[in-house]
Amino acid sequence: MIPLGGVEEIGLNMTALEYDSDIIVVDAGLMFPEEDTLGVDFIIPDFSYLLQNREKVKAVFLTHGHEDHTGALPFLLKALPVPVYGTPLTLGLVKEKLREHNLENAELIPVMPRDIVQVGVFNVEFVRVTHSIVDGVGLGITTPVGLVVHTGDFKLDPTPVDGQLMDFLRFSEYGERGTVLLMSDSTNAEKGGFTFSEKEVRRAFEDIFAQTRGRIIIATFASNIHRIQQAIDVAVKFGRKVILCGKSIVSNAQIALNLGYLNIPLDTWLTLDDLKNLQDHEVVIITTGSQGEPMSVLSRIAIDEHKHIKIKEGDMVILSAKMIPGNERSIGKIINHLFRRGAQVVYEKVSEVHVSGHASKEELKLMLNLIKPKYFMPVHGEYRHLVYHSMLARKCEILKEHIFLMKDGEILEISETEAKKNGSVNSGRIFIDGKGVGDVEEMVLRDRLRLAHDGIVLILLGIEKLSGTIVSGPDIISRGFVFEDVSQDVINKVRELVSDTIHGLDKEMLSDASLLKAKLRSTLKKYLRDTMDRRPMIMPIILEV
Amino acid sequence: MIPLGGVEEIGLNMTALEYDSDIIVVDAGLMFPEEDTLGVDFIIPDFSYLLQNREKVKAVFLTHGHEDHTGALPFLLKALPVPVYGTPLTLGLVKEKLREHNLENAELIPVMPRDIVQVGVFNVEFVRVTHSIVDGVGLGITTPVGLVVHTGDFKLDPTPVDGQLMDFLRFSEYGERGTVLLMSDSTNAEKGGFTFSEKEVRRAFEDIFAQTRGRIIIATFASNIHRIQQAIDVAVKFGRKVILCGKSIVSNAQIALNLGYLNIPLDTWLTLDDLKNLQDHEVVIITTGSQGEPMSVLSRIAIDEHKHIKIKEGDMVILSAKMIPGNERSIGKIINHLFRRGAQVVYEKVSEVHVSGHASKEELKLMLNLIKPKYFMPVHGEYRHLVYHSMLARKCEILKEHIFLMKDGEILEISETEAKKNGSVNSGRIFIDGKGVGDVEEMVLRDRLRLAHDGIVLILLGIEKLSGTIVSGPDIISRGFVFEDVSQDVINKVRELVSDTIHGLDKEMLSDASLLKAKLRSTLKKYLRDTMDRRPMIMPIILEV
Repeated sequence: MIPLGGVEEIGLNMTALEYDSDIIVVDAGLMFPEEDTLGVDFIIPDFSYLLQNREKVKAVFLTHGHEDHTGALPFLLKALPVPVYGTPLTLGLVKEKLREHNLENAELIPVMPRDIVQVGVFNVEFVRVTHSIVDGVGLGITTPVGLVVHTGDFKLDPTPVDGQLMDFLRFSEYGERGTVLLMSDSTNAEKGGFTFSEKEVRRAFEDIFAQTRGRIIIATFASNIHRIQQAIDVAVKFGRKVILCGKSIVSNAQIALNLGYLNIPLDTWLTLDDLKNLQDHEVVIITTGSQGEPMSVLSRIAIDEHKHIKIKEGDMVILSAKMIPGNERSIGKIINHLFRRGAQVVYEKVSEVHVSGHASKEELKLMLNLIKPKYFMPVHGEYRHLVYHSMLARKCEILKEHIFLMKDGEILEISETEAKKNGSVNSGRIFIDGKGVGDVEEMVLRDRLRLAHDGIVLILLGIEKLSGTIVSGPDIISRGFVFEDVSQDVINKVRELVSDTIHGLDKEMLSDASLLKAKLRSTLKKYLRDTMDRRPMIMPIILEV
Repeated sequence: MIPLGGVEEIGLNMTALEYDSDIIVVDAGLMFPEEDTLGVDFIIPDFSYLLQNREKVKAVFLTHGHEDHTGALPFLLKALPVPVYGTPLTLGLVKEKLREHNLENAELIPVMPRDIVQVGVFNVEFVRVTHSIVDGVGLGITTPVGLVVHTGDFKLDPTPVDGQLMDFLRFSEYGERGTVLLMSDSTNAEKGGFTFSEKEVRRAFEDIFAQTRGRIIIATFASNIHRIQQAIDVAVKFGRKVILCGKSIVSNAQIALNLGYLNIPLDTWLTLDDLKNLQDHEVVIITTGSQGEPMSVLSRIAIDEHKHIKIKEGDMVILSAKMIPGNERSIGKIINHLFRRGAQVVYEKVSEVHVSGHASKEELKLMLNLIKPKYFMPVHGEYRHLVYHSMLARKCEILKEHIFLMKDGEILEISETEAKKNGSVNSGRIFIDGKGVGDVEEMVLRDRLRLAHDGIVLILLGIEKLSGTIVSGPDIISRGFVFEDVSQDVINKVRELVSDTIHGLDKEMLSDASLLKAKLRSTLKKYLRDTMDRRPMIMPIILEV
């Protein structure tokens, strides 16, 4: 068992199972950047280990269609075109992404819950789970050393919107049969109690709809088909029409509709063009942007830059999604803007308009009780989530030495008689910035962080190569350092300092560009630190002519 | 009434009251930077209106010692040395800050709750409130047009740690007497119910102390004297010694101790030097860093860079503070590090080790009921908090047209008969970066954001001024753009493109540096956008010799 990602972070979920000459991969997810990965669009796991063993890799199994489980797939398939197994909605969503990467010919094999697939030595059964996306599955993987169960992302929703319950029978049978290893979702291992059912959101929607006379705008994740379904159902109940707004939400809804996962009466689904013909109390707009993403429909509505939707007094905006840590401030700004334009806004903090898709402590213990695994590997979490999950496992009588807190790339070797960590393979994070894959590395990010903090100061100097005579400059140019219009004196002082430094040097030093650069850099660095307490990047540029 | 800050943000709290030739100022707070104010240390309100009316400004009144109410004071007093009124602890904390700014001679006038001060036409009474810092007060300000009540920051703590209850009598009397305007704390206006008492934290501490055999490390805000007191009390109860660790927490504790606000048995307070002589079960370390600040003691402990404190198996770390939005990720990283080094970590999300210092909905309504103001101005919040607070005021029968949602700098003009918005004064945010005050403006921040996102690409070119002959370059230097070691081909292509562009130009253009620069910039910009989907800052640097 080699988790290539997902055990040191929320995201990057990807695990390899290897036996002799066979490798199968569970999920291939991306991760959204953090504040210190400046300018990076997203991150994928380093899967070079799979490429080094390309003959062994037989297939990828997807547990569900969220990007933290599927987003690295295009990059993997480009390098390693192997079959991909998944349920219909998962593959429907993935197909869309693959098309953007010109991977229409990828081999996607649809499976249904309880289907069984034999790939190499691995016998893989798909087991339905409930989660915040339709068509999620866990995996029961029979290997030569015993049964390995991977929960995928799950919660125990007693009343799922589509009525498709978690497959308690299969999971219990796995427990009865004897499971060697359980890998289980740790996202909410810090949270006590049970996670509420998705159906609870419907109640909140109904309350809001009942009190609202104006237009209703609901922002949620485009992949949350159940949430969209509930918004539609409540809209129908209250005689409102539904307008889906935004590329991803329209595309996902269409995919779900085609596969029969979404149910929307024909006369309910209208388009933005119909908006002008509707009365306010007839309108529900469902859109994206619940995380404050700057280019999303909701952001554009909030700052009044959307062509068709202008907020007015009486509008009701529902942010039906978790505020993901790190996004609160941008979300907060959007809420302020919407209020300022006269809308009423409700969100997770003030109303029950969102429930999590991940199991809380009691559900996690129940899963541990169903499976009763010999060994346990908490996955899908940062270290603290794995620790809290392992405490739950201890409560469920799993031996301490049978619980493995892994790092990305670490190998857990399991035989019939024992399990132990045994070294590790290449792993890490690949940054995707624009069209570049992996050309932004730590050093580049360090530079960006530095530039972001105090900007850059350039010292320009033209020197005659042989004589060491200054023929041009010194000139000082800065960006992101001080506002030059009002701080001309700072720039002047810097120029003076550089001039003085240069004039204090002998010809020999002047003719050695690298020595001269080092001298200028250290002098200016010290000066700016002492006088201004700032540390801009300093770049002496010496043109020798 | 002119809020100069604090009604469009959490922070920057500062309000001016003006009547004829008198102005008094309530609070002078700072704000910590947001993610788009890169490199800025903190922000203060633009108080140029006060400077323009310097003869009118008679005094500053501080409600309590938190930095979002006092942090701009050194900058204000430097420009405008006026008397400052505050309770002993507030002034104790402020004095420390003023010393750092060489303002030892500032006129600080200590007052006690129920003291009354006449300044110009204003008669100001100090009224005790309960909050997350000792010695907080609200203000009852009798003006020529009637009574104005400012709550300061408050919650209704029925069991405050120091036994000093909120002054319900005075606030009720203000209601009975008739209050023209109430300004009240909106921070928690989104939160239902009552805020728990500070004493609840003691219960959580006791539970944790009872179960812990190893060392206990508690991180909290240095100004939260009650929290520190409770940690000390529980330490004494469980026979542990207390080590205060970190400059600000030692300094604040010393100030509080001198003023009699902190009670610590002599034999309980030890220093870091004593650590080696203590058994693990005898140790409590109280420190800062609860927000994941990179240079704090806790951060250094977490990454094992603290000289004296090395985390080991059995240590218990308590983050006894709110995770301020925007800081969750850095806090999360610290928690992960601590777990990795073998500590047990508890925090707001998993235990009751923190309560808020601000009133929730029921308390806010109670305050509205006590005061029964004619006009209401929610303060201390972003727009959404003010909106939610105004909804509460509506429920308490305050007329809609008597509720004023202000912007920073807006004037609320109140006479005996009416209140109305009437224009606005200069206001805004001044960025403090290192020792620079206000030399970082929007444009500099835009540059930093740009640099942070995609870095910078320099094109170096030496040109003979008269002939337009290229005598050096083109050379390409980048920072924060691509990792040049592995992306040399990108740099080569850029150089080629620049070369080709230059050779396609006629002598005339080559001899016009600004034209040439514009041409190079636009060509390269388009190329990088199309081929790499990146937008670095592009700076052609042409040295004419």
